[in-house]
Amino acid sequence: MPPLSAAPVNPALAATFRPPVMEARRWLDGVTFPPDRPLINVSQAAPVDPPPDPLRRAMAEAALNQPDAHLYGPVLGRSALREAVAREWSAAYGAAIAPSQVAITQGCNQAFCAAIQTLAGPGDEIILPLPWYFNHKMWLDMQGITAVGLHCGQGMIPDAAEAAKLITGRTRAIVLVSPNNPSGAEYPARTLRAFYDLARAHGLALIVDETYRDFDSRDGAPHDLFTDPGWGDTLIHLYSFSKAYRLTGHRVGALVSGESRMIEVEKFLDTVAICASQIGQIGATWGMEHLRDWVAGERDEILRRRAAMQAGMDSLDGWVVKGCGAYFAWVRHPYAQSSAELAPRLVAEAGLLMLPGTMFMPEGDPEGAAHFRIAFANADPAGIAEMVERLRHWRP
Amino acid sequence: MPPLSAAPVNPALAATFRPPVMEARRWLDGVTFPPDRPLINVSQAAPVDPPPDPLRRAMAEAALNQPDAHLYGPVLGRSALREAVAREWSAAYGAAIAPSQVAITQGCNQAFCAAIQTLAGPGDEIILPLPWYFNHKMWLDMQGITAVGLHCGQGMIPDAAEAAKLITGRTRAIVLVSPNNPSGAEYPARTLRAFYDLARAHGLALIVDETYRDFDSRDGAPHDLFTDPGWGDTLIHLYSFSKAYRLTGHRVGALVSGESRMIEVEKFLDTVAICASQIGQIGATWGMEHLRDWVAGERDEILRRRAAMQAGMDSLDGWVVKGCGAYFAWVRHPYAQSSAELAPRLVAEAGLLMLPGTMFMPEGDPEGAAHFRIAFANADPAGIAEMVERLRHWRP
Repeated sequence: MPPLSAAPVNPALAATFRPPVMEARRWLDGVTFPPDRPLINVSQAAPVDPPPDPLRRAMAEAALNQPDAHLYGPVLGRSALREAVAREWSAAYGAAIAPSQVAITQGCNQAFCAAIQTLAGPGDEIILPLPWYFNHKMWLDMQGITAVGLHCGQGMIPDAAEAAKLITGRTRAIVLVSPNNPSGAEYPARTLRAFYDLARAHGLALIVDETYRDFDSRDGAPHDLFTDPGWGDTLIHLYSFSKAYRLTGHRVGALVSGESRMIEVEKFLDTVAICASQIGQIGATWGMEHLRDWVAGERDEILRRRAAMQAGMDSLDGWVVKGCGAYFAWVRHPYAQSSAELAPRLVAEAGLLMLPGTMFMPEGDPEGAAHFRIAFANADPAGIAEMVERLRHWRP
Repeated sequence: MPPLSAAPVNPALAATFRPPVMEARRWLDGVTFPPDRPLINVSQAAPVDPPPDPLRRAMAEAALNQPDAHLYGPVLGRSALREAVAREWSAAYGAAIAPSQVAITQGCNQAFCAAIQTLAGPGDEIILPLPWYFNHKMWLDMQGITAVGLHCGQGMIPDAAEAAKLITGRTRAIVLVSPNNPSGAEYPARTLRAFYDLARAHGLALIVDETYRDFDSRDGAPHDLFTDPGWGDTLIHLYSFSKAYRLTGHRVGALVSGESRMIEVEKFLDTVAICASQIGQIGATWGMEHLRDWVAGERDEILRRRAAMQAGMDSLDGWVVKGCGAYFAWVRHPYAQSSAELAPRLVAEAGLLMLPGTMFMPEGDPEGAAHFRIAFANADPAGIAEMVERLRHWRP
């Protein structure tokens, strides 16, 4: 009999990096911030304030008086919410989307995991534009799927013709996030269409994550993909209710795709979730019904912050805004050191918490070391101005 | 360029069976139940009623007045809940368990997925006693991990010596559920100890799922595994807040293991969840602090239902109770047909919804065809008596 020994660790998970947001929080340990220079936290796309009062009251009312708010619901989500998504998406994209083509998930990260699980297994490949959203990369790593990076061009926009060169017999999908996390780029409709046509021609899925769609600066539909009669065979659309309604702590997201894929999505969600939080779903439904104008105001405010961010950074010598939109800016810093080394120093020396570009790029890629992601939407214009001043006077 | 074609489907997921509970719900489609013979639903371990009023008020109060109830929380869970679990587990098992050894998950299914992800990858093997809990089997299937079935002996108790014969170089863990789903069996402390010693000797993990521990008929600690100084290297303990506090719709579970494994658990949870529902966690914490006596009353009621179940089934010719405890009984029926064929007929002809044993056994195993799982705890003693009478008079 072999000697006593500890249980094993899955090497694919051991090789996956640790959650960047939690790592960044550890930089705060033991650091005190003087009253005249409090911490400015632009590390995470997380609304600072809770949902508006009427939405909180609606959720409290459900907790008190709606028994089914506490019990299991359908795996693919509450009917009212699936119907609301189908209705609103149909109107927003000028298309006919049915409730049976909508799944509700425990947050949009889980919608991504579900989408990938339906598509790919170990040894398969998924194309991700660079910089990537780190939780996408982490899921692929732990599932033994190869993330194939696609460098972006001018304005942080990926090029479908470049992506075509990366397609192999193991490619299963291309992932686009627009407005982008971390770059903030709003992808033109023609870019999305070119990627859709490419995916369709090669029998791949196109995953389009529009978590930040409510804060897109453009009016009207951001793309026409849902108007293609066969969209359900190719497109997997992801959304989060966390940002628009400030429901981050309730974990409610959505996945929209063809009905046949929903059979596979349901297996995954049943096993990893059973269902999404019922109170969260009730809140999201209430928000869709009542908060359209409020969300429009939120968008206006975020667009003001974006303008402040762009103007402020433009006033700094040596810093370059490479992309800026929705919640994020992707900025190049002027220093020789890597952003991974500078980020903890910015906490201690300037009271600024932002994530280094290295968290969004393959190890060793110089673009990671040269950039930061700034979640500017978490700060008001005064906070953004203060952040800019601190950057102006800080030297590593 | 290849012809236009639909996006691929991951064959491992396609080969996974569909969620049994959702399949069973479809048997209700188009069936009407006469007023004098309403449906008796003993298919799912789901409390029928919402949480007690004071807990609902506590959650409503948090929704209204506690901003952080709506915002992201730590990946591994709220400190107050991790501390409460550590305190209560330490007392219940006569051990020293630290908050840093506790992770909070979006339900106990997710705790199982997290445990497996930390241990095993495609091609590895996990030993599951038969009958298994179907969501465990589904997760292993979709991850490309082989579920190695271990038939149980007298009283539906698995034998560690039999399990030893199944261990290969690819084995990564053994999973025990006690009280068991679906058999209801309460595993003796010596059984759990024998499996623990076996796992430890072979460098495997022992996953012990105690979702139904609050309804165990035995007083005191059900095992002594946490008193072993090295428990954190071998034991992964799973729990659900859904049953004790009727919080199924909030999705809150727990995973307790060694600190080094928590680093891997955190990666998985960050990616698939970010965090568990904050309101659900607040409710679970409140329940642990205030509902000890109430849960004790729930247990007494479930033990009464168990006695009614055992006595009722013993009065039926040809039916044999093979296991009975906590929420479930595993019963052999007297008919030649498979339970898979009989189950939909029981809905239509007797107004009884119960899951066939085939949903809990490998395809073709005769034990599946010969048994049903009855989630008797969902019915009160009068409902159980009525179910027994309907079974007495029904003939396929």
